[in-house]
Amino acid sequence: MVAKTPRGLVIVHTGDGKGKTTAALGMAMRAVGHGMRVAFVQMIKSGGVGEHLAAGRLAPNLEIFRMGRGFVIGEPDPEHIGAAREALEFVRNCLREGRYDMVIADEVLTAVGLKLLTVGDVESLLDDRRPEVHLVLTGRGAWQRLVDRADLVTEMRSVKHPYDKGAEAQEGIEF
Amino acid sequence: MVAKTPRGLVIVHTGDGKGKTTAALGMAMRAVGHGMRVAFVQMIKSGGVGEHLAAGRLAPNLEIFRMGRGFVIGEPDPEHIGAAREALEFVRNCLREGRYDMVIADEVLTAVGLKLLTVGDVESLLDDRRPEVHLVLTGRGAWQRLVDRADLVTEMRSVKHPYDKGAEAQEGIEF
Repeated sequence: MVAKTPRGLVIVHTGDGKGKTTAALGMAMRAVGHGMRVAFVQMIKSGGVGEHLAAGRLAPNLEIFRMGRGFVIGEPDPEHIGAAREALEFVRNCLREGRYDMVIADEVLTAVGLKLLTVGDVESLLDDRRPEVHLVLTGRGAWQRLVDRADLVTEMRSVKHPYDKGAEAQEGIEF
Repeated sequence: MVAKTPRGLVIVHTGDGKGKTTAALGMAMRAVGHGMRVAFVQMIKSGGVGEHLAAGRLAPNLEIFRMGRGFVIGEPDPEHIGAAREALEFVRNCLREGRYDMVIADEVLTAVGLKLLTVGDVESLLDDRRPEVHLVLTGRGAWQRLVDRADLVTEMRSVKHPYDKGAEAQEGIEF
């Protein structure tokens, strides 16, 4: 592990707007530029191929892991919960083992909103990491105690979205 | 140019929080993953080496151009204005020539706030681009007419920033 960061920061991207995951990807790219090693763990969603293709070109510094299942509607079933818990433990190992300088738990807060994980599950990640590892958490619905414990919290607020006027999602932009 | 995008979107990242430039970098990475060509033009700032180092690994799809001068305080001098205008025309050429699928004018809105450029300068970019090219504009202080003309606008709102508790900027995170 490259010893560039004296203390790992806890960074939260929340809010209803675009840019939470995208900004995490940008952070990953910037960190790779500094020679850091980054694990980007997708907690619940299965879409998004663009970043995977580019990630190959940032290998071995950037690794993207697709875990969990897609978004769920209604009460979560055991299969989804199991997949989310598996992803959670995967993130915990990444935070502990010393292989990575930055770990991104993408959509982990959304997983709490979907009742796939609890607030305690997420907060336990903050306790279990090596102190020098940066932890980035994304998703809607950050709660106050998480904000209190985080170093940097940004809310991505949707001012205007193309779906408002009926545009379709475009490859390379939305996914 | 890869013909992947039927219509170019105008995307704005504004607000006082972190993540405007970082999300633009993430968009660049995702676009590169789809084989698109991206010009990332820094309009006023000189910092930020991390993305340059990583950009080399996404070449030739991603090119980063450092233009303009650093941030200015007080009334802008002719040298800064000249550099900003040069960057503006560079962006305009990128939008016109057909080499790029996405053009990112980073901190261009901030340049307006610093009186290095006018709102008319920025809006003229929207008129002058090829219709299939995505244009991403970042910086504080998006104005209403720009929001009206844009397809997607996200406000990055600072909820908590590490400087609030005296932490120093960290390599690979902030720059």
